[in-house]
Amino acid sequence: MARAKVDLPVHRIRAYLEPGPIVLVSSADKDSRNIMTMGWHTVMEFSPSLVGCVIAGGNHSFDIIRATGECVLNLPTSDLIDQVVGIGNTSGADIDKFAEFGLTAEESEKVAPPRIAECYANFECRLHDDVLVDRYNFFIFEVVNAVVAKSPKNPETLHYTGDGEFVLAGKTVSRRRLFRPGLLGNGR
Amino acid sequence: MARAKVDLPVHRIRAYLEPGPIVLVSSADKDSRNIMTMGWHTVMEFSPSLVGCVIAGGNHSFDIIRATGECVLNLPTSDLIDQVVGIGNTSGADIDKFAEFGLTAEESEKVAPPRIAECYANFECRLHDDVLVDRYNFFIFEVVNAVVAKSPKNPETLHYTGDGEFVLAGKTVSRRRLFRPGLLGNGR
Repeated sequence: MARAKVDLPVHRIRAYLEPGPIVLVSSADKDSRNIMTMGWHTVMEFSPSLVGCVIAGGNHSFDIIRATGECVLNLPTSDLIDQVVGIGNTSGADIDKFAEFGLTAEESEKVAPPRIAECYANFECRLHDDVLVDRYNFFIFEVVNAVVAKSPKNPETLHYTGDGEFVLAGKTVSRRRLFRPGLLGNGR
Repeated sequence: MARAKVDLPVHRIRAYLEPGPIVLVSSADKDSRNIMTMGWHTVMEFSPSLVGCVIAGGNHSFDIIRATGECVLNLPTSDLIDQVVGIGNTSGADIDKFAEFGLTAEESEKVAPPRIAECYANFECRLHDDVLVDRYNFFIFEVVNAVVAKSPKNPETLHYTGDGEFVLAGKTVSRRRLFRPGLLGNGR
């Protein structure tokens, strides 16, 4: 089901990406669109809002993203686990993954590739630096637009541990009282 | 309490780092030793076992790690949450964090900085590539030795979401039956 969303300041994406969830990467060129499952990513900077991630050269998405310099990082929750696994175990060279997995391609605001409407959040990205692409398949993207579901505050995200197993996001614990004020902020 | 541990093949560290836990980074030079809290990291390759991470230039650890090219990524669980927060809110320029937070410095096997005995796992690292350190404070380390606690299989790791809040690792879900065999392996 498509989710109702609100805008999120791009410097606050750490609240959703830093905990290490599996994400779905959507991309498109004039001939095709695609989705891949990806777990090797890290926040790198707040402003500009940078995310680094590994997209293996064998992926159909690699060529599209390298050529177009754009993608969307879509944040799925546990209700989408079978789609996440299916997308990670098929190739966009053979099928249209949006159709195959019943996902809705929704127009992005600032980039050409579509967002996935059923995901909890969508982070629209432009390639910021490709200096490590040849050596490590490591892309540094700038998040240029972000939207997040109105609720719940804490999504049950999927965290991959290899061998077909996932850890789900569990309960939330606050230690705000122990932080220096300058280190607070940028939360959910 | 120090944990009983077993060796872990270094290509299998993804099982513990890919889900995005907060880690404690220990470092040392001839004059001092230090610990920092770090959440911006990603697995980059299985063999060699590479991990990329952001260590901000303002940190006391930055200079030590840049100069020595070594550190240990220690994986804390939720029982260490107050130490994790304390370490992230103090500077090693002022205090010895091992003493201050009651943590045990244990000799590493392949690098000079000590491991933290109370952590669930310890990943001994050597600097592999510093090409992005000047531009992004992004270090690429090779994990040269890894040990992991004998139990439990699934540690309750800490995942930071900003603003003083953490999400704890929750329940585990398997979808092995939906995976292509070639994509399985490297799990816990």
